[in-house]
Amino acid sequence: MLRIAVIGAGRIGHVHAKTIAAHPQAELTLVCDPIGTAAEDLAALHGARACKEAEEVFADPEVDAVVVGSPTPLHIPHLLAAAKAGKAVLCEKPIALDMKDVEAARAELDAVTTPVMFGFNRRFDPSFAAVRAAVADGRIGELEQLTIISRDPAAPPVEYIKVSGGIFRDMTIHDFDMARFFLGDIVEVHAVGQNLDEGIKAAGDFDAAVVTLKAASGAVATIINNRHCASGYDQRLEASGRDGALFAENIRATTVRLSNAEVTDAQEPYLDFFLERYADAYRLELSAFIEAVEAGTTPPTSIDDAIKALRLAEAATASAKSGQPVLLD
Amino acid sequence: MLRIAVIGAGRIGHVHAKTIAAHPQAELTLVCDPIGTAAEDLAALHGARACKEAEEVFADPEVDAVVVGSPTPLHIPHLLAAAKAGKAVLCEKPIALDMKDVEAARAELDAVTTPVMFGFNRRFDPSFAAVRAAVADGRIGELEQLTIISRDPAAPPVEYIKVSGGIFRDMTIHDFDMARFFLGDIVEVHAVGQNLDEGIKAAGDFDAAVVTLKAASGAVATIINNRHCASGYDQRLEASGRDGALFAENIRATTVRLSNAEVTDAQEPYLDFFLERYADAYRLELSAFIEAVEAGTTPPTSIDDAIKALRLAEAATASAKSGQPVLLD
Amino acid sequence: MLRIAVIGAGRIGHVHAKTIAAHPQAELTLVCDPIGTAAEDLAALHGARACKEAEEVFADPEVDAVVVGSPTPLHIPHLLAAAKAGKAVLCEKPIALDMKDVEAARAELDAVTTPVMFGFNRRFDPSFAAVRAAVADGRIGELEQLTIISRDPAAPPVEYIKVSGGIFRDMTIHDFDMARFFLGDIVEVHAVGQNLDEGIKAAGDFDAAVVTLKAASGAVATIINNRHCASGYDQRLEASGRDGALFAENIRATTVRLSNAEVTDAQEPYLDFFLERYADAYRLELSAFIEAVEAGTTPPTSIDDAIKALRLAEAATASAKSGQPVLLD
Amino acid sequence: MLRIAVIGAGRIGHVHAKTIAAHPQAELTLVCDPIGTAAEDLAALHGARACKEAEEVFADPEVDAVVVGSPTPLHIPHLLAAAKAGKAVLCEKPIALDMKDVEAARAELDAVTTPVMFGFNRRFDPSFAAVRAAVADGRIGELEQLTIISRDPAAPPVEYIKVSGGIFRDMTIHDFDMARFFLGDIVEVHAVGQNLDEGIKAAGDFDAAVVTLKAASGAVATIINNRHCASGYDQRLEASGRDGALFAENIRATTVRLSNAEVTDAQEPYLDFFLERYADAYRLELSAFIEAVEAGTTPPTSIDDAIKALRLAEAATASAKSGQPVLLD
Repeated sequence: MLRIAVIGAGRIGHVHAKTIAAHPQAELTLVCDPIGTAAEDLAALHGARACKEAEEVFADPEVDAVVVGSPTPLHIPHLLAAAKAGKAVLCEKPIALDMKDVEAARAELDAVTTPVMFGFNRRFDPSFAAVRAAVADGRIGELEQLTIISRDPAAPPVEYIKVSGGIFRDMTIHDFDMARFFLGDIVEVHAVGQNLDEGIKAAGDFDAAVVTLKAASGAVATIINNRHCASGYDQRLEASGRDGALFAENIRATTVRLSNAEVTDAQEPYLDFFLERYADAYRLELSAFIEAVEAGTTPPTSIDDAIKALRLAEAATASAKSGQPVLLD
Repeated sequence: MLRIAVIGAGRIGHVHAKTIAAHPQAELTLVCDPIGTAAEDLAALHGARACKEAEEVFADPEVDAVVVGSPTPLHIPHLLAAAKAGKAVLCEKPIALDMKDVEAARAELDAVTTPVMFGFNRRFDPSFAAVRAAVADGRIGELEQLTIISRDPAAPPVEYIKVSGGIFRDMTIHDFDMARFFLGDIVEVHAVGQNLDEGIKAAGDFDAAVVTLKAASGAVATIINNRHCASGYDQRLEASGRDGALFAENIRATTVRLSNAEVTDAQEPYLDFFLERYADAYRLELSAFIEAVEAGTTPPTSIDDAIKALRLAEAATASAKSGQPVLLD
Repeated sequence: MLRIAVIGAGRIGHVHAKTIAAHPQAELTLVCDPIGTAAEDLAALHGARACKEAEEVFADPEVDAVVVGSPTPLHIPHLLAAAKAGKAVLCEKPIALDMKDVEAARAELDAVTTPVMFGFNRRFDPSFAAVRAAVADGRIGELEQLTIISRDPAAPPVEYIKVSGGIFRDMTIHDFDMARFFLGDIVEVHAVGQNLDEGIKAAGDFDAAVVTLKAASGAVATIINNRHCASGYDQRLEASGRDGALFAENIRATTVRLSNAEVTDAQEPYLDFFLERYADAYRLELSAFIEAVEAGTTPPTSIDDAIKALRLAEAATASAKSGQPVLLD
Repeated sequence: MLRIAVIGAGRIGHVHAKTIAAHPQAELTLVCDPIGTAAEDLAALHGARACKEAEEVFADPEVDAVVVGSPTPLHIPHLLAAAKAGKAVLCEKPIALDMKDVEAARAELDAVTTPVMFGFNRRFDPSFAAVRAAVADGRIGELEQLTIISRDPAAPPVEYIKVSGGIFRDMTIHDFDMARFFLGDIVEVHAVGQNLDEGIKAAGDFDAAVVTLKAASGAVATIINNRHCASGYDQRLEASGRDGALFAENIRATTVRLSNAEVTDAQEPYLDFFLERYADAYRLELSAFIEAVEAGTTPPTSIDDAIKALRLAEAATASAKSGQPVLLD
């Protein structure tokens, strides 16, 4: 049983707390949030203890591992402190909003030996993982074109947008990691930002975007993002290769189809958002983390993945603003 | 160019006339209907001649072949007269409403040598034919269970129902032929009739039914019929075998799917009715007829098929009325 | 927290033990099986205690409720003993193989007041339940025809078949309950049995069947069963009504589709068998049981449901043997 | 009856000749090709006359309209000569490979009054047209993102590639028109070319590409092209709007689905190539042309459409070579 603390009792903290509490090899020991009642409420839900200061987590001898789900600017401080305290760490994305903060952290992190993993949960989604495995298996020959459709059901509040680092760091970051998961190193980024919502535009951000990524291999990935989708959380992927193609389709709560005088074989709206859509992925991500910690092996996602996804986000931000493609080395 | 006359300028006559007119190897020469204006209007549509008396068709030296689309009681007289006049004949289903009429006809028909084919158009539907070919090819191993869903968009007028011979002779007849097409000889029939519509009940007929057919091979076919379907003409089939299953799904006019806040990937209603749904089948049926006539080969459907389908219809009628299964020899 | 014991450490016992252990409102306290090691192994998996004698379960003050997953002939004795001991009971299907055993039990059961529920898990399947709710909601108008396709991935060993009570009591029992769930009282049963497998035939049972059920309402249900399906556990349902139709489709582990030179949009095989296919249903069934126990309300399935499903199984058995339909009152 | 001549007896000439011959309002009178046997063979297929010199077509008083299906460099000369001779013209795409040739033609064309239409056949595809109509109808709210997947089954010979004007002028030209059909004026083009095939690379062309188009409205279109697709001619489109999305899916010859131990609900490969995939579109395009000619109305596609699609092709070519986006005015 791995005894795990969760830092941050917000939306993502709730996901992790619930996932840990239900996991047969894990135990939720401690929930930490500066808003004490938030920590207490979440802890109470799962029979765990609560605290307000992150330092209490790092000092707690009954904590083996820490899930960092605090606001993005605190990711690096919490990650480093936990690692230095000898805790295994699973850190949420994005690692930071600014690359130079990350570079500094990297040096420090190189000095610690506890396992540190980064929360690119979609790599653990059963459908995406199956497509990836089938591609690796040669089922569609050489991969030529990857298309990722990723649309949120509704935009977050403008207040959130303002501190989010922008759509590419906040939302596309997952798609960048997915592109790397399939295609490896990316050498060129071109992004087109769209302003469909006036409020988000006023906040200086885009609310939709199309990003083209050229991989070192010659393959190209296209990411189509929108902060809004009428049918729910639209998460699809298509890997097209020399000998075939693989598709990961949207998920619905049931397999029910309806036919009447207007529509036939109509399915339900997609699952609402990431909590529902990626419930399995969060669970399998946690399993991979626990397994790595217990076996002493390298976790499947590293700070390198976090850095490279952030670098793509920075490049896309620059490209969408300048209109010019950005070359990476 | 096969010069073809159509007897009967009703709904099915229109289908055949149009199919013949558009066929590269056929020419519509003559349309015959006792209601002279009906014949003239249909003939005019396709640049053909018109007449009121069937005898004119049989005597016309410019007619090589006759499509019999007259009311069911006239099928046998027209069929025999045409065949005796040396015309090739394509006769609509059902051959008759009463088996003893057919038995008499059979003896006379044995004496003629012109090709005579019966209009089981669904055998020529590209999807059903492809399933049949794949089954024959061993793609799903030994066929064990066949399920036929066949629902009309809306019931015909009660006046039609009254002279139709009942749902099994009028509607299920096609499904009986389809069952024989896949399973060969049927040894037992059990039918449950449903009365969902009061008017049709008052006319002494069922408007929905479930029929179970046991084949000599041990396979079982289930036919599910309804005179009404909200989404259009519901025509599906599923062949389940030892090593797999094959499905022929409904057809829509386009491949469009719609997603919004209520439905996702919703398709259009099914094609409206047999004219649209089986347009290809009528065309391919005509091709098979022309090919047999021109090559002097046996047409793909025979009076035997017509008789055996009718026998199943009679058995189902008896079963639905008595509640008992009917054994065939 | 409801403290639950499981009697029977076989396949279904494993399902329930796992479901209970993972349920936030339940605790697995005790596992009972005459084969002591089976009980111990299963108990150890979930940190519960083990025993060999059912009497220990009934006498245990730390057991609030009992899940009866023993062999069918023991269902009634275990059910009654548990209920008389004041335990809430969730009993697996079929309640018994013989109706007179059930009638005797019913009288005794009427005298107890603890909640007793019967394991018709498919009522809790999210897709079937959603179809049922939509029908009840009037989404497709009056229900006219229900079609249930239910095929197991592979037949059980002939030794199991011999004591199973036959396909209708052992396998179709679930489909009978599903038909009742949608259509209410059934007035006529007609069954056709198939012998596709020689070994099962030698054991005096059918391995495939088609059953037609006439409901008091005039609606008809068709059940198509097979002990074998090449693609996995084939569990589908289609409810066709006056204004539309609803379909519950098969489930796969992922949403992945594959296209290559031979196939397009090919999905994975269906989930393997009931453990996987109905994992959610078992969980939701348990939730419904716990909720009824804790709220003191009537559980959603009763001995009446168990009896009526068994009566349909008996009628189908008789019909398949005699070839005649069986009327129910 | 519109009497139509076809210039060019190549692949596209065959499509048009067949479509004209089968059209109830058209008559194929003349087929012209410098390779006399090609013209004669095609003419013979449909009972038309043949000639070698285009001048004979323009001078023929029995020709009301001309379909120009000659090699691209002859499009403008043939189009102008036919129009000046008073013939209605349906000209294949692309109008030319070089914009300055087109500009010269435009001035001359402005002086003629006969109807001239350009062959953007996909606008007439029933599925694409239905999506377009539903978008125009407001079914998905304001259109935000359009995604066009367009992959040929196999690359043409390198000899063809060399004179084709490159992938953007030869293949993407249809997708550019489709983008304009949905989004209207395009203000920015960014293209990434891919070299998956060495032979095509050596010929100086790309064989796959991703193009991003920014529309004046703020909507963005993404075009994903590949000269190769293992499953056939991959032609899909997805229009995503504020209130929903519409999809036009691939087409197969039948609706058959196959399930076995490896795959479930597997469909057939897509239709092979444009002759099959767009047969309906060519027919409906011809109908629109005939209708415009006979009613004296403006045809639905104009030289403006041809010019604007070519301009997008030129911009994409420049962008793919330079790596920079190209702004249009």
